[in-house]
Amino acid sequence: MKTSFGSDNHSGVHPVVLKALADANKGYCLSYGEDDYTLRAQKAFKSFFGEQAQVFFVFNGTGANVLCLQALTRPYHVIICARTAHINQDECGAPERFTGCKVITVDTPDGKLRPSDIQPLLFGFGFQHHSQPKVISISQATELGTIYRPEEIRALADLAHRYGMYLHMDGSRLANAAASLNFSLASMTTGCGVDALSFGGTKNGMLMGEAVVLFHPDFANDFLYIRKQCMQLFSKSRFVAAQYLAYLENGLWLENARHANKMAKYLEAGIRDLPKVTITQKVESNAVFAIIPEPAYKRLLEKHFFYTWDESTGEVRWMCSFNTRKSHIDEFVNDLKTSLL
Amino acid sequence: MKTSFGSDNHSGVHPVVLKALADANKGYCLSYGEDDYTLRAQKAFKSFFGEQAQVFFVFNGTGANVLCLQALTRPYHVIICARTAHINQDECGAPERFTGCKVITVDTPDGKLRPSDIQPLLFGFGFQHHSQPKVISISQATELGTIYRPEEIRALADLAHRYGMYLHMDGSRLANAAASLNFSLASMTTGCGVDALSFGGTKNGMLMGEAVVLFHPDFANDFLYIRKQCMQLFSKSRFVAAQYLAYLENGLWLENARHANKMAKYLEAGIRDLPKVTITQKVESNAVFAIIPEPAYKRLLEKHFFYTWDESTGEVRWMCSFNTRKSHIDEFVNDLKTSLL
Amino acid sequence: MKTSFGSDNHSGVHPVVLKALADANKGYCLSYGEDDYTLRAQKAFKSFFGEQAQVFFVFNGTGANVLCLQALTRPYHVIICARTAHINQDECGAPERFTGCKVITVDTPDGKLRPSDIQPLLFGFGFQHHSQPKVISISQATELGTIYRPEEIRALADLAHRYGMYLHMDGSRLANAAASLNFSLASMTTGCGVDALSFGGTKNGMLMGEAVVLFHPDFANDFLYIRKQCMQLFSKSRFVAAQYLAYLENGLWLENARHANKMAKYLEAGIRDLPKVTITQKVESNAVFAIIPEPAYKRLLEKHFFYTWDESTGEVRWMCSFNTRKSHIDEFVNDLKTSLL
Amino acid sequence: MKTSFGSDNHSGVHPVVLKALADANKGYCLSYGEDDYTLRAQKAFKSFFGEQAQVFFVFNGTGANVLCLQALTRPYHVIICARTAHINQDECGAPERFTGCKVITVDTPDGKLRPSDIQPLLFGFGFQHHSQPKVISISQATELGTIYRPEEIRALADLAHRYGMYLHMDGSRLANAAASLNFSLASMTTGCGVDALSFGGTKNGMLMGEAVVLFHPDFANDFLYIRKQCMQLFSKSRFVAAQYLAYLENGLWLENARHANKMAKYLEAGIRDLPKVTITQKVESNAVFAIIPEPAYKRLLEKHFFYTWDESTGEVRWMCSFNTRKSHIDEFVNDLKTSLL
Repeated sequence: MKTSFGSDNHSGVHPVVLKALADANKGYCLSYGEDDYTLRAQKAFKSFFGEQAQVFFVFNGTGANVLCLQALTRPYHVIICARTAHINQDECGAPERFTGCKVITVDTPDGKLRPSDIQPLLFGFGFQHHSQPKVISISQATELGTIYRPEEIRALADLAHRYGMYLHMDGSRLANAAASLNFSLASMTTGCGVDALSFGGTKNGMLMGEAVVLFHPDFANDFLYIRKQCMQLFSKSRFVAAQYLAYLENGLWLENARHANKMAKYLEAGIRDLPKVTITQKVESNAVFAIIPEPAYKRLLEKHFFYTWDESTGEVRWMCSFNTRKSHIDEFVNDLKTSLL
Repeated sequence: MKTSFGSDNHSGVHPVVLKALADANKGYCLSYGEDDYTLRAQKAFKSFFGEQAQVFFVFNGTGANVLCLQALTRPYHVIICARTAHINQDECGAPERFTGCKVITVDTPDGKLRPSDIQPLLFGFGFQHHSQPKVISISQATELGTIYRPEEIRALADLAHRYGMYLHMDGSRLANAAASLNFSLASMTTGCGVDALSFGGTKNGMLMGEAVVLFHPDFANDFLYIRKQCMQLFSKSRFVAAQYLAYLENGLWLENARHANKMAKYLEAGIRDLPKVTITQKVESNAVFAIIPEPAYKRLLEKHFFYTWDESTGEVRWMCSFNTRKSHIDEFVNDLKTSLL
Repeated sequence: MKTSFGSDNHSGVHPVVLKALADANKGYCLSYGEDDYTLRAQKAFKSFFGEQAQVFFVFNGTGANVLCLQALTRPYHVIICARTAHINQDECGAPERFTGCKVITVDTPDGKLRPSDIQPLLFGFGFQHHSQPKVISISQATELGTIYRPEEIRALADLAHRYGMYLHMDGSRLANAAASLNFSLASMTTGCGVDALSFGGTKNGMLMGEAVVLFHPDFANDFLYIRKQCMQLFSKSRFVAAQYLAYLENGLWLENARHANKMAKYLEAGIRDLPKVTITQKVESNAVFAIIPEPAYKRLLEKHFFYTWDESTGEVRWMCSFNTRKSHIDEFVNDLKTSLL
Repeated sequence: MKTSFGSDNHSGVHPVVLKALADANKGYCLSYGEDDYTLRAQKAFKSFFGEQAQVFFVFNGTGANVLCLQALTRPYHVIICARTAHINQDECGAPERFTGCKVITVDTPDGKLRPSDIQPLLFGFGFQHHSQPKVISISQATELGTIYRPEEIRALADLAHRYGMYLHMDGSRLANAAASLNFSLASMTTGCGVDALSFGGTKNGMLMGEAVVLFHPDFANDFLYIRKQCMQLFSKSRFVAAQYLAYLENGLWLENARHANKMAKYLEAGIRDLPKVTITQKVESNAVFAIIPEPAYKRLLEKHFFYTWDESTGEVRWMCSFNTRKSHIDEFVNDLKTSLL
């Protein structure tokens, strides 16, 4: 197909990850997470997130999010998130269906929750008619490409814990956030009080596979059953673990994320002074959001693939990934310029 | 690890499948099943199962089974299966949880359901206090390695349809059954009245990926939402479709299954005359079930990996796969002989 | 306890209803809705709502709402309602849990939905990542005591049907709306395109019991199983049917509702010119919403029972019922005046 | 209708209970379990079951059972019961749907579970593919009219607790069991290690209403939300509490149960020597199970109402209740005799 800025999952697999799959394809191996690759990958996670981190591999991002939420809730609880959150917009209601919880959303201009957004929703505790607030869920990076600073995460975790609630982080693009802030993975998660993390791999160069990381033993106790019952247990588990090993060892996760972020910045630089182009969100990770005139939009779509983000405003989203090349962007920017004429 | 007869998923990926993954790793590609690989794979399925077959790829066998069942039921229905069925024994209650249905089991000596087993359960239709019988679910090959003849499947389908019910087939090892009977995939499924099929790939040489095949447009109408909400939608979908293309084209599925079956027969031949070894099920696909004396069992386990199937009788299960080699079996049989001394 | 304006369910049972219970307490009677009382009550409903109306008695309002919604949806659907809707605020997440659906809310000043509120939410049809809009749910009268005119209901039904969606009405206070508008029950429901109705009895003089009224045979087909499985089937069903017979025959429902509405108007008249009292919603049924100074609020609470509606503004709700007496209100108004001094 | 031996819920309401309803119909009263009647009824329960007993009123028996089970389980658990258990046969799959659990049944000749029935099902603990055994559920009296001796209950509780499991008792006819054994309610429940109890009222003279009794504070912590979310919270709660007060105070529960049991014994005595009548279960509570010739069955049905229990054997069930009169039985026995001629 054409060059795609449609999604970071329009890219394929990083060659190092593909090689790891081939390398793991040797001999017999236990399945269902009892293989040596999984044990090694679990250790690798602990080296990044600390000894208390319990990691469980699942198939996809929706699975990781829903299973984290399920580990933290009972059906009469409330999950609070931004309206733009993946768990609200892009999972076809899976969180409601599988946790039974009410999902309450907050409108935010930049996809980020702030304590002042959430405080007004924290009432009705102990009132039997009301679903009980239990989880704040944030995305890092957000679906709008913006990033929480560690102190912002900490403030949300503190608010949550003050009310006996938990903080979940959808980190399908946590690598991009870490690369952007130049902070460690731990410092933005367990270091800030995050209780459960969905840690992505697929969007940053893996073939498939996401990780649920639980920071309290209590949440992890029965998680094996939750994962199996929720249809997220991979039989030939070595092939997700081997990917994560390749991804975490030697810094591939960071290298890929840095590159994707850099490409987004390069794209931003190429278009920010163009007349009739409005960049609508801060470019802090691997996404560029913009509004361009409709005729230009149509002409550009003939040569490159991307999605409209908001039908009502015409806002579009351009995603970069580990294998976006400068030349792709140069061509894209040129075509945009032409289409604006 | 040691040679494993523990499960056909202890084997890795067939090289042809691995190559297909590498070949698909080129350029940008749409995700979530909208890519060309998926379109081509869907066509390949139709060439095997007929034009009316709607295929949807999912992650794993539990996912395929639960989603098939969900497409066929409402929560006040009953699903009838053998006690040994994967949906009853090995899915941690996922069918009950995600369909809401009651699962009623039948004890069978060989893992196969017969109309006479099911008829006594078909009552209470229209009685509001009773869950309403709606699905008969069979496994082909069964979890005990046995196989339904097409006319046996037809009889079950006819019974189901007579009561306004449906027939689901868990075909995680359908390839082995086809290889064993020398029948086409269609002739054992849609040709016999099967309404929904879980068609496996993982246990027969793929890295991951199973297929839901629905034989009535009604079931397929809303299936996209069911799959997404049930967390079984793969983002980089080209990588499951490419596997299935490699698997279906050029007959790899059949070749692998034939080999696995042949190895099981070879194993059976090597042990059937051994004193103190009782083969407990007909060897019709890629599994051998047997009872051996406990001391022999313990000694054998030191050199080869396999599972006890039934703690109460000491029955063990030995699985062969596409990459089981004759030499593995020769060694295994020798070790078994020694261990019996 | 003190005089209560806390809820219309703080009142007891109308003597006519109580007598009907005693009268029904004779001899043996079939249970689970197969008794003659139920048959007669079903006929009475048809005389009000038309022959196509299928009525099913359930225990309570949450049950009626959730079962209506379940009859109309599958788990990947969206239910749209006002933020103040009982199904959103007061059912502890039961709709999400038991339908599996996403509940999307709209902020409205008066508890009423308008087509222009809903239109922006009607997108993503056919997009597998999005829960699919399927039900608009309104309350008549609303939780804020306001009332939809029939043409307003019709406009919502038309909008729903244009998109293949349904209109549900939470009519726990439908009698009050009918009394207020002087319209028949049918003219505000099936006459306006309502697809499923929760028709209340408990808040208007019954001991317990609500009715699910389904206006399409398709919805009703499997409803017996839904009701039973959802734990809403009354064994000694004559005792809910007998109440409804007493309630519907001889116009008790209307008489009670008229009285309650009249009392609310009387209360409004008594306080509307008081300084420092702001009536915050139109008084169209049996509720009066107001803001009064906090000291007055505290003093008044010592003598009368009522609830704060909105902690953030101090808004209170005063409900009248079939057995609220003028003298109660006179006393209440006097005490309010004193407390304002 | 004709005299009914069809079910104990074909009888109406005991006059003392009806009077209690009328007496409670005075003035305003808080709703949703916050009224004085509920507080008094809770105290009454503690006087019977001990201070640690937490009681919650619900609408019906299915509700009581499902809510007990939900308080004790997570969705990946197993509930074990007799095949004849109400939770298995007569609740349209509500336990599976609302707990998510697998329900595993045991065939028993008399509706009673024994440790030796259950022991073989207690395996797979810690094995992620298996639903984890968590609850043993028994009915006292059983659906076949038989009764557990306290030591039999204790043995089941001990077995359960040894495996970290719980014992639930469906006591919809616990009063009949207590009357039969002449044991206190506590001695057969908390005294034997029962963890959660559904305590019936409807079948023994109440209009409606069942009680969930939880014997550990842990189970009760969040129960208010479970009850509300599961649609089992009665708004005008005084009217269930007042019934239970009338039922428990002055021994009405025991008197009614004794009478019903006595009538069953009287019926048994009247028919046990009849030729061609086989009594199939011990008559220990208020049920008589028997097989009679088909022609007699048909003739008898013309004059009296009752149900076939087992279509395959022609076994019928005759239930007595608090208001079955000797004269009803005399007439019934006479008609049976005639029909046998």
